Amino acid sequence: MTAATGGDDLKAMSEHTIKPPSDSERLDWLRLIRSENVGPVVFRQLLDRFGTPAAALEALPSLAGRGGAKRQIRICSRDQAETESAAARKAGVQLLILQDPIYPPLLRDLEDAPPVLAVLGDPQVLSLPTVAIVGARNASANGRRLAEALAEEIAAAGFVIASGMARGIDTAAHLGCLPRPSTAVLAGGVDVVYPPENQALHRDLQQSGAVISEMPLGTVPQARHFPRRNRLISGLSRGVVVVEAAQRSGSLITARLAGEQGRDVFAVPGSPLDPRAAGCNHLIREGATLIASAEQVLEDLRHYAAGPTHIAPQSSEPAAPERPQTDEQAVEIMGEEACEALEELLGAEPLMVDELVRRSSLPIAVVHSALLDLELAGRIERHPGNRVARLYKGPADPL
Amino acid sequence: MTAATGGDDLKAMSEHTIKPPSDSERLDWLRLIRSENVGPVVFRQLLDRFGTPAAALEALPSLAGRGGAKRQIRICSRDQAETESAAARKAGVQLLILQDPIYPPLLRDLEDAPPVLAVLGDPQVLSLPTVAIVGARNASANGRRLAEALAEEIAAAGFVIASGMARGIDTAAHLGCLPRPSTAVLAGGVDVVYPPENQALHRDLQQSGAVISEMPLGTVPQARHFPRRNRLISGLSRGVVVVEAAQRSGSLITARLAGEQGRDVFAVPGSPLDPRAAGCNHLIREGATLIASAEQVLEDLRHYAAGPTHIAPQSSEPAAPERPQTDEQAVEIMGEEACEALEELLGAEPLMVDELVRRSSLPIAVVHSALLDLELAGRIERHPGNRVARLYKGPADPL
Repeated sequence: MTAATGGDDLKAMSEHTIKPPSDSERLDWLRLIRSENVGPVVFRQLLDRFGTPAAALEALPSLAGRGGAKRQIRICSRDQAETESAAARKAGVQLLILQDPIYPPLLRDLEDAPPVLAVLGDPQVLSLPTVAIVGARNASANGRRLAEALAEEIAAAGFVIASGMARGIDTAAHLGCLPRPSTAVLAGGVDVVYPPENQALHRDLQQSGAVISEMPLGTVPQARHFPRRNRLISGLSRGVVVVEAAQRSGSLITARLAGEQGRDVFAVPGSPLDPRAAGCNHLIREGATLIASAEQVLEDLRHYAAGPTHIAPQSSEPAAPERPQTDEQAVEIMGEEACEALEELLGAEPLMVDELVRRSSLPIAVVHSALLDLELAGRIERHPGNRVARLYKGPADPL
Repeated sequence: MTAATGGDDLKAMSEHTIKPPSDSERLDWLRLIRSENVGPVVFRQLLDRFGTPAAALEALPSLAGRGGAKRQIRICSRDQAETESAAARKAGVQLLILQDPIYPPLLRDLEDAPPVLAVLGDPQVLSLPTVAIVGARNASANGRRLAEALAEEIAAAGFVIASGMARGIDTAAHLGCLPRPSTAVLAGGVDVVYPPENQALHRDLQQSGAVISEMPLGTVPQARHFPRRNRLISGLSRGVVVVEAAQRSGSLITARLAGEQGRDVFAVPGSPLDPRAAGCNHLIREGATLIASAEQVLEDLRHYAAGPTHIAPQSSEPAAPERPQTDEQAVEIMGEEACEALEELLGAEPLMVDELVRRSSLPIAVVHSALLDLELAGRIERHPGNRVARLYKGPADPL
């Protein structure tokens, strides 16, 4: 029953035909995503299963209990949500929810799209065709010069530039396209300027583009926030250009996520003698497109460039196959047993959920339900690319 | 009749079962390839059609006349051939012919393999697994350092290095692998040292490896010789590594020929701000493998690395489909008409022979025969990759 309601709800959401949610409903969205152990994927599954955030909030404690939570999970109170909402209003921050028509369509297509997205500046910018430019913090002067030029020329061709407002390449990319719009995706709160020297850029971006984050206002960015943030940079974008990146750098994570999201990945090559080129050269060996000019990026992406209207959402294919629509009873019966079996199969290394289904020989609906329970109980952790890993004691730092 | 004999002959040749040619026969090989308008492709076709160089030499004047030669073509005399042969002996140069078992097997597989190959040094080296390293003459210090290191490590893994003994990358590659063997493929005569500062290297290469050329002794290299030479560098090699190359450089010609010959092409990337990296970056965009270390070349080629024996010839598939075995009469009847039609279709821009067959709607046998006549008459020119172009007045400089 509830599952069917969830299905209809999701369908309606993707068709944009639903009436705008009330303020009270918006608060429920905020409460649910701010509750303990609820990430974007769990959020979607709960919505899918219970139809509304309000219903999901009600069911949360018992689900977490079934997953083996040792104590009650912390649910965000109405008061707390109202406080965040009021602070956002005061700071000029809009909190978009997944159902809002203005929610960026490419981002909405991600399985782990943020249910609530904080936006400083013009949210319309987020729906314009976007190209990400990212790279090393300790960039060379040449690298920064290249990033600036690429940003300027790609922006001039009709794209918004997305980046992470970090030192080095990111900052150069944002600066390069001014006064044209760019989008900064922050790892901390949308109002927390990091690095501090980017105060003026942060202000300029609000004027000319947008600054966004899925984190609560005031969140100070921590190392573990960056990989999650990176999926949003690529998720917003048609393509991701990497300029200077060492091996094992955050830019390579962005590039990997971009590939998994079906985005085009471009990399600027460099001499094998330059360690800052190692990451890009590696990406090219792995299949990224070598580019030496903006023109070469535009060769592949120009057909996306902006007319005055924004891009229609691409797929919104029914997420149904992922849903435990059948086997409701199996889920109930096998629930606890499944939780144990899956926990047994999982390690600290993230594993594809598909692989987990294969290895466990459990019905897919049972696996999904059990993962939801385990996640709510804080015993597993979602990773981008439909992967999950076991949590041994407290959340591990993924960087 | 003659065609059938030629077919048998070619077959026997590729099976290495034929008895070694007499000194007199070797002189005929030399005479035929040194005759006017006879290049490697024409040579093979003549051999195919007439069975022996002696028979081909006899038929040459009438063929050229049918192709529309305004005067008798110059046929290399027995005296001239004896003079070259004696000079070679005196200089310690071996003249390998295509039928010699020691003729490098990978080279023999080329449709335009030199019928006679001059070798200074150890001809056995030419049959060992080989990797070419080529690049810019005006190389940077970093580029030369890379080429040296790549040559040293690839040679240490069991490969002979092939290059062109030019300034810059080529010289660095030869030096890098010393005292291990490398092969220098010269554009001029095997005894003509160019650039002059490579006198000592030329001597070292004879000791440790080989210096080869298809040109007569004493030939001073000219710009138009270099692209022809480049096909031999790639032809000898399992893979070609390009280190620093500008756009429109000879190294890119080598890379293109390598691709056409089915060799692996590797390129060392560089910054888009470095014009010496433009050629390599372009190659990578076109599908060459980006490499930043010898290890990455060896990843793809290690299985070829030397045991003590040389590589068996790969294919020697019957070249029969190319031969005007049928339609002998059509060839006779349509000969002159076909020559005119083909000349009409051809321009200065090289055209694939296949394409010419399509466009002319002539039987393939007729096209091949007419092209042979036209080439002997000096009215068309062969280009690597089974292409031909019209010659308007005297041979054009292909560089």
